[in-house]
Amino acid sequence: MKTRRADRLVDMTHYLLEHPRVLVSLNFFAERYETAKSSISEDLAIVRRVFKSRGTGDLKTYPGAAGGVYYTPMMGQVEAADFVNSVCEAVSDESRVLPGGYVYLSDLLGDPAVLRQTGRLLTTEYVGQEIDAVMTAATKGIPLAQAVASELNVPFVIVRDDAKVTEGSMISVNYLTGSSKRVEKMALSKRSLRSGAKVLIVDDFMKAGGTIQGMQTLVREFGGTVVGTAVFAEGRSNVRLIEDFTSLLHVETSPETKTQIKVTPGNFDTRIYQEKA
Amino acid sequence: MKTRRADRLVDMTHYLLEHPRVLVSLNFFAERYETAKSSISEDLAIVRRVFKSRGTGDLKTYPGAAGGVYYTPMMGQVEAADFVNSVCEAVSDESRVLPGGYVYLSDLLGDPAVLRQTGRLLTTEYVGQEIDAVMTAATKGIPLAQAVASELNVPFVIVRDDAKVTEGSMISVNYLTGSSKRVEKMALSKRSLRSGAKVLIVDDFMKAGGTIQGMQTLVREFGGTVVGTAVFAEGRSNVRLIEDFTSLLHVETSPETKTQIKVTPGNFDTRIYQEKA
Repeated sequence: MKTRRADRLVDMTHYLLEHPRVLVSLNFFAERYETAKSSISEDLAIVRRVFKSRGTGDLKTYPGAAGGVYYTPMMGQVEAADFVNSVCEAVSDESRVLPGGYVYLSDLLGDPAVLRQTGRLLTTEYVGQEIDAVMTAATKGIPLAQAVASELNVPFVIVRDDAKVTEGSMISVNYLTGSSKRVEKMALSKRSLRSGAKVLIVDDFMKAGGTIQGMQTLVREFGGTVVGTAVFAEGRSNVRLIEDFTSLLHVETSPETKTQIKVTPGNFDTRIYQEKA
Repeated sequence: MKTRRADRLVDMTHYLLEHPRVLVSLNFFAERYETAKSSISEDLAIVRRVFKSRGTGDLKTYPGAAGGVYYTPMMGQVEAADFVNSVCEAVSDESRVLPGGYVYLSDLLGDPAVLRQTGRLLTTEYVGQEIDAVMTAATKGIPLAQAVASELNVPFVIVRDDAKVTEGSMISVNYLTGSSKRVEKMALSKRSLRSGAKVLIVDDFMKAGGTIQGMQTLVREFGGTVVGTAVFAEGRSNVRLIEDFTSLLHVETSPETKTQIKVTPGNFDTRIYQEKA
């Protein structure tokens, strides 16, 4: 029987990691492994303890006929601090500063490991909130939105600046860019978001927040609600249109030389989840 | 000791799933768990057996001082057939056909579970090949490229049709679209791909293959090699510029009515990996 438990633990861990934020019934595992529910409960207690001690996330068991087990990926304070410090260090590199004070981040936003960890960190802040979909604006927000949506186990939708022939009917809104005060347009396929959806907005970089404000307008046009806003990096801005957001990094490029860069951790808060407690 | 093994199996499974296609030394695990290497070897034999029987992937152990364990995510024939059939069914819906014979796929390409499985299936074909990076063209190929790159554990790069201020110096090429024979331009940030890189090209939809041919040119401009091409769906085309590719789906919309759609499995081949063998 020892071997059987070992086998179940390996497969159960894999299954739970691939099905976050969904209630899996004990019956499902009992049938999958042809094993009594009492043994499954003992297995899950082991998985819970290891996930807790390694900071993988939280595993909750709900008793009763309608009960089951619910896995929430989370990042603890220590791991979050280590990860963000390593990203700060990677971004603190003057060769990343481009003309206009922009910062090159495409390598990090194209690194699966960085994306996976960023997704886990940014979703930790929204634990316990109901979220139906993640929204982002093309192009550079997409990998982040996917990383966050994957941890939340919900679909993500991509807002575009043009109506594409492959998207069908679209709803578009105008918005004012925060810094240059230009009027721009953004559009989302009509069938991609249902009315009443609770939406988490995700983007790579926020300065004044004009693009994010545009997405907020778009969510309302679809009859939905904005649950929150999460960004990889916030930049310096004289105007700030968005007050309530979560950021991984705070990035400042010097307005004088344009080649200096100062990177500090953003305003994320993982205090709600402490590993090794 | 029974409990300790159980704990190790849970954490080891999680660790290996997050670090595919990289050699992890037995010493690493021995130190992580303060356990003799002989016990670690036994643990890994259990993980290997379960991964094999559940079709999670392949776990190889290399003996010796420089040895270790190497996990390759793979999808077996049965799971691949089931998955592709379910996707075929989802796409075989006349309401997806848009004016011009285009097909709406954004819901599937924004579904984390579909992306994860597609990534695993498309990479199975390239098992054993050296791949340094995944390349795609903005916008709709991005989620797929990320899903494939995540399974391969390599970075992905995004080719754009315009030079953005956030990308720094770019290399651009002209290419001929396959169907309409227009000359277009695509560009990639100079610092995103190193010379000599072995590249897997990934895109959402291929008709004649003009965009993919453009990306092949771009890879050569960077001094790299194209290892292969993988697409979510191939459409019908009178011209085909790309012969060697892997597709998940074959999609045909009727040239007469433009509201009929016929979806069949693509040319993928998972015979190399058989689960439950």
